[in-house]
Amino acid sequence: MNALERFRAPKNPKLRDEDAGLTPLREKNGEGGTKQRERALTAELIGQVAHFQEMLFASRKQKLLLILQGMDTSGKDGTTRVLFSQISPMGIRATGFAAPSERERAHDYLWRVHAHVPGNGMIAVFNRSHYEDVLVPRVLGDIDGKETKRRHAQIRDFERMLSETGTTIMKVFLHISKDEQKKRLQERLDDPEKHWKFDPTDLTVRAQWDAYQRAYEDAIAVTNADHAPWYIVPADSKTHRNLIVANLVLETMRGMKLSWPAPKADLDKLKVE
Amino acid sequence: MNALERFRAPKNPKLRDEDAGLTPLREKNGEGGTKQRERALTAELIGQVAHFQEMLFASRKQKLLLILQGMDTSGKDGTTRVLFSQISPMGIRATGFAAPSERERAHDYLWRVHAHVPGNGMIAVFNRSHYEDVLVPRVLGDIDGKETKRRHAQIRDFERMLSETGTTIMKVFLHISKDEQKKRLQERLDDPEKHWKFDPTDLTVRAQWDAYQRAYEDAIAVTNADHAPWYIVPADSKTHRNLIVANLVLETMRGMKLSWPAPKADLDKLKVE
Repeated sequence: MNALERFRAPKNPKLRDEDAGLTPLREKNGEGGTKQRERALTAELIGQVAHFQEMLFASRKQKLLLILQGMDTSGKDGTTRVLFSQISPMGIRATGFAAPSERERAHDYLWRVHAHVPGNGMIAVFNRSHYEDVLVPRVLGDIDGKETKRRHAQIRDFERMLSETGTTIMKVFLHISKDEQKKRLQERLDDPEKHWKFDPTDLTVRAQWDAYQRAYEDAIAVTNADHAPWYIVPADSKTHRNLIVANLVLETMRGMKLSWPAPKADLDKLKVE
Repeated sequence: MNALERFRAPKNPKLRDEDAGLTPLREKNGEGGTKQRERALTAELIGQVAHFQEMLFASRKQKLLLILQGMDTSGKDGTTRVLFSQISPMGIRATGFAAPSERERAHDYLWRVHAHVPGNGMIAVFNRSHYEDVLVPRVLGDIDGKETKRRHAQIRDFERMLSETGTTIMKVFLHISKDEQKKRLQERLDDPEKHWKFDPTDLTVRAQWDAYQRAYEDAIAVTNADHAPWYIVPADSKTHRNLIVANLVLETMRGMKLSWPAPKADLDKLKVE
């Protein structure tokens, strides 16, 4: 099964709550060992990703940018963790883009993002990104439809430039349902050790769930390009979500046609004294 | 057993090859399952580290800087991997300091390092560091004894400032023997998939083994402070090395007296709608 095709966002994506619970990769076995099997399979795939990453790092000719977006609690952190579980930390960098600082706000909204795009040989994971700037301000009414469209075009231009200069881009929307978010937010509230993760404004955002889903649908529709594809990943199940993302990253890296750099002259005849 | 005391560099450290193979934490059992047991124990300790890291990240009041130094193949990358295996990638950053770029060389040698020290709530891992600048140029004769001493003093000042402004510093020298390095470099040469890791200048550096060991001894001796302690970790065994480092990081974080931030008002009475 080709995950890149299976989960590629369609031309006019509709984010329906019921689709967040889909588990198309789940084997048709008893529920019992499903999660365990999905964890094991994910680990196996990430092991293969780690092998490709070594080639990427060794060759230093290409770069990979993975953008993770999704509503609060959709699993952006958890997905990032899975990638780091086996990939060498010297070759992958995760950057979170929270509400911009004063210095960041003094620049255009692509400035802080641009500073963290990957260099040759590297993988960069964006935990949120420039897409926040066509979501939050739009829903809050800080930018109008015209400005939103202008930003959409700017983002398309920016990503095309990155692609043309050697960056493979993949964009993943972690799709959870409103019910699942309710459960996860409530868990944070019920566990004092998770209180720090809870931001009361999460509830304000949640209250505007539909507006955010529509803003996502638009942003995905107009920035979904073959050189910067969007994938919509059902994310109500954490283990299945990780399995899908592992598949997507692996297939993307396979498509990069990576290879080991040309061997340095006669290195294998050297003897260490 | 207190690893912080056990592996703390002494006043006048002597780096003897025979000490690189010591395994004081290894249980006195048959060799058979030793590595497996050490891996399992390391994973358990890193799990505890991950718990402290969550508190560090949640509180955002302190920061931890771990500096890894050691000869080529001593395991700086492998040690970094172990830390990342369970700690949330959003809360830990690894930075490698290879030979400086032109732009970096246009600044003082602390400039590029300073840019990557951890912010509040973060752990930073330095894979090599400003210590390279009292090693390589000294052995190559690019700086004389007087300049080396001046840099030692600058490094002491820099680290004291970091400590005084809230950074917990720990410095780890991964101590391998010359024989073990020979084995590891030869492995890189014998495996075409590891050729990219091999840099012919590694052999030049190896040829000056003793000079580097002396430069390390000096640097460690004069920068070994209670607020920026050096630990000398026998590193001929990879699993035992990881176990020691896991112990050191865990004990250091325990010493930071971390706690969860004060609960936000009445959060536990909130209901998510």
